[in-house]
Amino acid sequence: MPQVMTLNDAAERLVEVGRDFHRRGWALGTSGNFSVVIEREPLTLAITESSVDKSRLRPDQILRVDGNGKPLAGVTGKPSAETLIHVAIARARASGAILHTHSVWSTVLSDYHAGRAGFFIEAYEMLKGLSGVRTHDHREFLPIVENSQDMESLAKQVTSLMTEHPDLHGFLIRRHGLYTWGADLEEAVRHVEILEFLLESVGRRQMMEPERSF
Amino acid sequence: MPQVMTLNDAAERLVEVGRDFHRRGWALGTSGNFSVVIEREPLTLAITESSVDKSRLRPDQILRVDGNGKPLAGVTGKPSAETLIHVAIARARASGAILHTHSVWSTVLSDYHAGRAGFFIEAYEMLKGLSGVRTHDHREFLPIVENSQDMESLAKQVTSLMTEHPDLHGFLIRRHGLYTWGADLEEAVRHVEILEFLLESVGRRQMMEPERSF
Amino acid sequence: MPQVMTLNDAAERLVEVGRDFHRRGWALGTSGNFSVVIEREPLTLAITESSVDKSRLRPDQILRVDGNGKPLAGVTGKPSAETLIHVAIARARASGAILHTHSVWSTVLSDYHAGRAGFFIEAYEMLKGLSGVRTHDHREFLPIVENSQDMESLAKQVTSLMTEHPDLHGFLIRRHGLYTWGADLEEAVRHVEILEFLLESVGRRQMMEPERSF
Amino acid sequence: MPQVMTLNDAAERLVEVGRDFHRRGWALGTSGNFSVVIEREPLTLAITESSVDKSRLRPDQILRVDGNGKPLAGVTGKPSAETLIHVAIARARASGAILHTHSVWSTVLSDYHAGRAGFFIEAYEMLKGLSGVRTHDHREFLPIVENSQDMESLAKQVTSLMTEHPDLHGFLIRRHGLYTWGADLEEAVRHVEILEFLLESVGRRQMMEPERSF
Repeated sequence: MPQVMTLNDAAERLVEVGRDFHRRGWALGTSGNFSVVIEREPLTLAITESSVDKSRLRPDQILRVDGNGKPLAGVTGKPSAETLIHVAIARARASGAILHTHSVWSTVLSDYHAGRAGFFIEAYEMLKGLSGVRTHDHREFLPIVENSQDMESLAKQVTSLMTEHPDLHGFLIRRHGLYTWGADLEEAVRHVEILEFLLESVGRRQMMEPERSF
Repeated sequence: MPQVMTLNDAAERLVEVGRDFHRRGWALGTSGNFSVVIEREPLTLAITESSVDKSRLRPDQILRVDGNGKPLAGVTGKPSAETLIHVAIARARASGAILHTHSVWSTVLSDYHAGRAGFFIEAYEMLKGLSGVRTHDHREFLPIVENSQDMESLAKQVTSLMTEHPDLHGFLIRRHGLYTWGADLEEAVRHVEILEFLLESVGRRQMMEPERSF
Repeated sequence: MPQVMTLNDAAERLVEVGRDFHRRGWALGTSGNFSVVIEREPLTLAITESSVDKSRLRPDQILRVDGNGKPLAGVTGKPSAETLIHVAIARARASGAILHTHSVWSTVLSDYHAGRAGFFIEAYEMLKGLSGVRTHDHREFLPIVENSQDMESLAKQVTSLMTEHPDLHGFLIRRHGLYTWGADLEEAVRHVEILEFLLESVGRRQMMEPERSF
Repeated sequence: MPQVMTLNDAAERLVEVGRDFHRRGWALGTSGNFSVVIEREPLTLAITESSVDKSRLRPDQILRVDGNGKPLAGVTGKPSAETLIHVAIARARASGAILHTHSVWSTVLSDYHAGRAGFFIEAYEMLKGLSGVRTHDHREFLPIVENSQDMESLAKQVTSLMTEHPDLHGFLIRRHGLYTWGADLEEAVRHVEILEFLLESVGRRQMMEPERSF
């Protein structure tokens, strides 16, 4: 397991990630939220402040929260509304970083496949960029959770999902976007790039033969 | 209600907005026009000059107009042809900034749905980026106005529209683009980002199942 | 009629235009060619060298040619293979600059509509960015010429086309791209932006209702 | 035949190419691999290290391998898993550089046409940017190889393919992307630009008339 980052390093790097993801259309408006585990015992996350513009993210908008998603003493500002989901993922996977993006293709496909509670991405070489996947001959399940503003309930669903499917690398929330994670922040960033690429590829492939299913 | 900006601050920031929107394909050619309320009593707007290239916008191309859309004493240059629409919105909403963009997706959808005088954007998480919207479980109406070169008539229609629908965050003009606004310029910029994202998402979703309606 | 540019000014500005158009995907590989009229009597053009990479265009790759498309004394390097088309347009329209771009959407639509020898772009606000168009309520014909490597024959077709249709602002060559022009280079650049925007809009609109025709 | 590059020059230029291709979406995650022939007798390639992020490629991640794809003495780091394919192409074509990109459109079309073991790209002007092609009136075959993790077998198939089709400029691996090459690195880069442009054009053209075949 990689070493955890300091708050300062996490904040500096998340600012870069935020600007890059905004530029690429994955965190427009005030959408998207990002966290890094900065201590494991007790669990402590550095997470983006609620409702901030990612194209102008500042290090002081990265806040420390505890293992219940509560801001630590001295924190001013409100952590992301979705902090509980980050905590649930950090616990279920011992992951070092959790990233939530909100692209056009994740939004479109999370709705298109919603009736099936998820879909498979299969036999793409790009899957090998996901941690632990060694061959394109792999069948990756991408579950879809119905959207909700009840974060406790969403966090519970996420915990169940991750227990049922120990091999997941990410999931979608319907009409809301993608969650993925990694052993460290760089791996989580790579997972975003790879899953966003696959979502666009699968979406465009589907559009070329709407009558078939992929 | 936020404080109004000075002319200089408005001009400097609109130059940045113009260049950014041009780069993103939302204000190509000489399309797009942007205004900021710089005084409320009497109503005074700083607005982009008519027919200028937004990729090279200069502070001296931001002109002061009064509450009837007329250039104030000392102004050289012709204010945007659509100044009356800006004034109508500024009056109807007490908004601090009004932005008109002209993207591919707003153009396409304003025509696709023209027969229905508008359409709903519903249940998308991104809607929460619109001022006052607290949940994805929201039904946003985006009206479509027929295009016209008679600005007085268009401005009147806009006033009626905004009176009939007090909760609007924007509207489309057919084959012409999007108008949105905000309490201040930053909120208006965010509304553009959010509505443009939603238009692209709704458009691509529609293309995946042309037989259904969304 | 605007003043003509000097060779140096034309070369400097065409280098910028080349890099910008390459970045936007309108002049990839060695595609695209651009000219500016630098003298009217006798007709003299500054035109891009044949087969050069527009992302690395240099001022010394802008060559002087006469009214028959022949390089002037002292010119080293071969002018664009399509120089005769530029000359034909310069003569037919007294235009100050001619730009040929090669985008995905111009390529796709020049083939889709080839059977009809052209198509109309109608009732779009963006049309007002074309020189002399004062209202969206305008019907712009965009002819399509079959592609050929016989430049004399192509140049003759272009001359005929421009005589038959005195109001054209551009035309497509099938599976080859767009030609447009302007009174000066800035107007020609604006025409590219506007026509490329309209081509993408018309193309996506068509895809939303393939059974109808637009 | 152009002069070969030194290792240092190759490494410096490949770093630029890697960053540019990443930015354009052709080498996301750790996908893509690039090589340059730095000696012909005995055959020696400079090739990207396995599993590195192309947006942060460093000169020390360009490794020297011999004509069997084995790292030369003194090399630390593991060469790209696909080194054998690069060697096979270098031998079959006496090419100076080999580039493998992994775009959305190459992925989508390599799957759409997989049942036909390839497809033709025909009568596009952009084909003239491929080495040796003098007219748009050209029929370029783009074969599709089934993906595999057995690199020796893939390399053999590539050798056969290139023997059977001496005029190829590239091929696709199913759901995996594009291989192309050139007499030198600049020609190979141009071939990527041109083939990626043609793939997007052909893909979008296909989507406008799904019932026809192109």
